[in-house]
Amino acid sequence: MQADLQKRLNRVIGQLGGVKAMLDDNRYCGDVLVQLAAAESAVRSISSRLLQNHLETCVVEQIQRGNVEVVDEVMQLMRKFSR
Amino acid sequence: MQADLQKRLNRVIGQLGGVKAMLDDNRYCGDVLVQLAAAESAVRSISSRLLQNHLETCVVEQIQRGNVEVVDEVMQLMRKFSR
Amino acid sequence: MQADLQKRLNRVIGQLGGVKAMLDDNRYCGDVLVQLAAAESAVRSISSRLLQNHLETCVVEQIQRGNVEVVDEVMQLMRKFSR
Amino acid sequence: MQADLQKRLNRVIGQLGGVKAMLDDNRYCGDVLVQLAAAESAVRSISSRLLQNHLETCVVEQIQRGNVEVVDEVMQLMRKFSR
Repeated sequence: MQADLQKRLNRVIGQLGGVKAMLDDNRYCGDVLVQLAAAESAVRSISSRLLQNHLETCVVEQIQRGNVEVVDEVMQLMRKFSR
Repeated sequence: MQADLQKRLNRVIGQLGGVKAMLDDNRYCGDVLVQLAAAESAVRSISSRLLQNHLETCVVEQIQRGNVEVVDEVMQLMRKFSR
Repeated sequence: MQADLQKRLNRVIGQLGGVKAMLDDNRYCGDVLVQLAAAESAVRSISSRLLQNHLETCVVEQIQRGNVEVVDEVMQLMRKFSR
Repeated sequence: MQADLQKRLNRVIGQLGGVKAMLDDNRYCGDVLVQLAAAESAVRSISSRLLQNHLETCVVEQIQRGNVEVVDEVMQLMRKFSR
């Protein structure tokens, strides 16, 4: 998963570099906004992948050890992402 | 505005580079997710700034020239961002 | 459009009444949450329809009369919906 | 919690009834949209409360019984809400 996430992060960084170039070239705002929406959606998708992994490993382990407070941490993370 | 957007884009690219480093260092997923949520929120804020500018300039001009179809384009952009 | 929106609002109100009944019957939370997500999505879809109509009529008219401040109002609305 | 959720659901149903009345009275779309955004936000807040309870009770119990597949169900719910 690590390699997949690094690859996806590189791709988003590339997309944002592309947005910088579009702004430098005074490209039509509507087109720049479509690229920004794609970058945001890619970041969201990386987060979702990592969150799933976090739940399946760390969170399950913590709960099985009786540390149920980890649920509060999960709720706080989820609130950050549902804005 | 151009300079401000470029600065903000550089900052998000830096944040995402930081996330890559955190993954390489096997940092706690919960912490990585907080950084990803911050990066996503920064991208959203850049889009919102650019969208406001787009509406205030291009869209207003198009509508004043009678090209009201630009409203459809705005709705499509807004749907991309309200996912 | 008026009749369509009223029908859709009645449907959401019905869905939320259904959620109340599910809670009374102590139904499985996961199932209740699926219904709530559907209701939220229906409200979002009604807003999107009304917003499109608002842009195509009131906002276009205001801009054509030279009242470009209406764009600020649109941005404020969009921020409420992109949370 | 049950009583609190029922009260909140009644309030949202009342808000949506108010939106119906505003449409009947041909009120300004911008004002109707503000009320719809408030209703959507109230539904989201009810879901968040119920989801927290779901995680703290059912999900923790399932994980402690070794039924880790419940995590997939949680991820599916979260995806519905992060649209």
